[in-house]
Amino acid sequence: MTVAEKIRTIAADARQASFAMARLSSGAKNELLLDMATALINNAPHIVRENQKDLAAGEERGLSAAMLDRLMLDSARVQGMADAIREVAALPDPVGEVTGMWRRPNELMVGKMRIPLGVIGIIYESRPNVTSDAAALCLKSGNAVVLRGGSEAIHSNVAIAGILKDELAKRNIPSAALSLIPFTEREGVTEMLKQEEFIDVIIPRGGESLIRFVVEHSKIPVIKHYKGVCHIFVDASADFDMAREIIINAKTQRPGVCNALETLLIHRDIAGTFVPFIYQVLSDLKVELRGDDAFRQLAPEATPATEEDWHAEYLDLILSAAVVDGMDGAIDHINRYSSLHTESIITGDYANSQRFIREVNSGVVMVNASTRFSDGNQLGLGAEIGISTTKLHSFGPMGLTDLTTTKFIVYGDGQVRP
Amino acid sequence: MTVAEKIRTIAADARQASFAMARLSSGAKNELLLDMATALINNAPHIVRENQKDLAAGEERGLSAAMLDRLMLDSARVQGMADAIREVAALPDPVGEVTGMWRRPNELMVGKMRIPLGVIGIIYESRPNVTSDAAALCLKSGNAVVLRGGSEAIHSNVAIAGILKDELAKRNIPSAALSLIPFTEREGVTEMLKQEEFIDVIIPRGGESLIRFVVEHSKIPVIKHYKGVCHIFVDASADFDMAREIIINAKTQRPGVCNALETLLIHRDIAGTFVPFIYQVLSDLKVELRGDDAFRQLAPEATPATEEDWHAEYLDLILSAAVVDGMDGAIDHINRYSSLHTESIITGDYANSQRFIREVNSGVVMVNASTRFSDGNQLGLGAEIGISTTKLHSFGPMGLTDLTTTKFIVYGDGQVRP
Repeated sequence: MTVAEKIRTIAADARQASFAMARLSSGAKNELLLDMATALINNAPHIVRENQKDLAAGEERGLSAAMLDRLMLDSARVQGMADAIREVAALPDPVGEVTGMWRRPNELMVGKMRIPLGVIGIIYESRPNVTSDAAALCLKSGNAVVLRGGSEAIHSNVAIAGILKDELAKRNIPSAALSLIPFTEREGVTEMLKQEEFIDVIIPRGGESLIRFVVEHSKIPVIKHYKGVCHIFVDASADFDMAREIIINAKTQRPGVCNALETLLIHRDIAGTFVPFIYQVLSDLKVELRGDDAFRQLAPEATPATEEDWHAEYLDLILSAAVVDGMDGAIDHINRYSSLHTESIITGDYANSQRFIREVNSGVVMVNASTRFSDGNQLGLGAEIGISTTKLHSFGPMGLTDLTTTKFIVYGDGQVRP
Repeated sequence: MTVAEKIRTIAADARQASFAMARLSSGAKNELLLDMATALINNAPHIVRENQKDLAAGEERGLSAAMLDRLMLDSARVQGMADAIREVAALPDPVGEVTGMWRRPNELMVGKMRIPLGVIGIIYESRPNVTSDAAALCLKSGNAVVLRGGSEAIHSNVAIAGILKDELAKRNIPSAALSLIPFTEREGVTEMLKQEEFIDVIIPRGGESLIRFVVEHSKIPVIKHYKGVCHIFVDASADFDMAREIIINAKTQRPGVCNALETLLIHRDIAGTFVPFIYQVLSDLKVELRGDDAFRQLAPEATPATEEDWHAEYLDLILSAAVVDGMDGAIDHINRYSSLHTESIITGDYANSQRFIREVNSGVVMVNASTRFSDGNQLGLGAEIGISTTKLHSFGPMGLTDLTTTKFIVYGDGQVRP
């Protein structure tokens, strides 16, 4: 068989297995996940040995120390993967929930019931823990899953997926419900993206270039998130101390992630005092500020911002900053430059808080809170499969429920249409 | 400007206008729609005159009488269009609904709020009433809309859209919130499908070839529905009279629509009596039956069914029929051949009714009711923008709510992430 034929077979088998997954009770799915967690721990030495092959290859290829650290598994990290699976097992099962039911004039009872999506394809890079995290979320929500990890983690991923598949087989669940595509060439991705007959949705996790490649080549709907250009707007009525703490947290607590702050907007009425204040605070923390003209009149040492800065996801200790004409100016700037990820207003004004919540249509809109909370776990979804910055299907952080859809259910007693 | 440039401008202006639409109150949107309805009636003579140009051109091009009838507008039909807009105005506004809110351990209040999708593109054929129906649904749900109707109705569509746009302008709403692409060449569609920067979703309405063309060429997510291969399974415990009435209704009441019955599945245990019974009933109604071997043993005059028949959407007085091994056989057949539109079981057995509802994952799953109820109006959505047979975003008949998404909203009082 060619690579294309093998991938088509994997996808077709996953579709068939998805029917069995959709029928599994919550209890059976939870027991399966708990056994998978135990199996990972019992097989930790094997996983660590395989991981060492990836690490050796990575060193040979000259991966950075940070990359090698992301790739590395030891027994503590395997324990962490098992704990994450157990957390998913403890979450409520979304499948079968009837989200509403109503009676029609002809006595038909009509409702909507939550069902799995079917087969979910996950395309990801480096961290091998995604293999078990994503598998647990997809299986718990009654789906089959086709995984395609990066070449740098192939030995680790094959080992982890193999251990998890054994648990499916032990319970007489078709082990095709969890498949890892073993081809590390690009062809492995492009062929997977052609299986629209068998795979319902693709969720890519990784850098912007991976995601753009997937979107460009996929015939399957993609739920995606290119980048997070998160804004904080400091309203005229903001408490300066609260604003300072939130901005420091949002920009510096972990600058390399998508929910970190990238652009600060300041109400013109307080710019005279707030701009010098926050410039000093952030400079002391080694944050480079890139301001518009109005900002730089009040903080002359700031770098001049260019048009590119308003689009930039720095993922670094750099912050663009602009003085805006109140709520209208802030909302206009956000509508123009937002990546639809997360925006927050710092305000003491009731009406402005409500207007910001109502009129800013990003995936997560906040009042008086750090953008760093924009994360499935932090928002209470229990676990996160990804974030969507496109509005179709799901918008914002995605949990178990976002791996399901709803069907209409209709109970009659012989009704026909007049 | 080239056609491409003009379409890009229309889409960009629609994006800008969508911000204004998203801010409109329910009251303002309802008044707008009611004024639009009145304006259509007041301008009925103009609409009918423009429609006559389309009819004349259609006759010249040799359109069938049925096609010309679908195209024709008279004052009664314009009245019907106005009534449909008024019905949409009377529906509850989905925008702003908070679908849940919860408190996190750190006292953050986290919820989900319904928001418009943004800009919706509708690509449709022949019936000019889609122009006003789709516009009303998109505007009521706070979206901007870009319409692209077929060449055969271009004069009617331009007239209708122009009248509706005037009402936007009178209320100082950017009239780009409702645009009709005036180019009837294919280029008008292909260029529209490239505007992924400005248009959030495309909903095609028309025949399978139009929809396949849109899916093939679109860079924008498409919510689609190719065809309806609807099944009815007659369980061993079915009441024969109820089964007869439902099957007659589902197959013959309006055979040319997507929710008509196309395949009948019969439990093996009752085949000996039910097959000759239903064969006689349907033959008397001029329905051609195409049966599998087991069916034809009991109804030898039936045509032999081929593999193609199980995939066929006849849209005609033809019905494929198979004898199956109970629930397992019925569910396997449906999983294999279903277009994910609508399936119904006729049964007197409680456990089987529940199993069918649970295990058949089509957009609409019914017990003891005609598949002809699979329609947004009949199911109580108030109005229908289309049907989705793909599971992403929406699945099954789609109403106003399906033209929205949800964002997370977060109320804090200074929380930062530890």
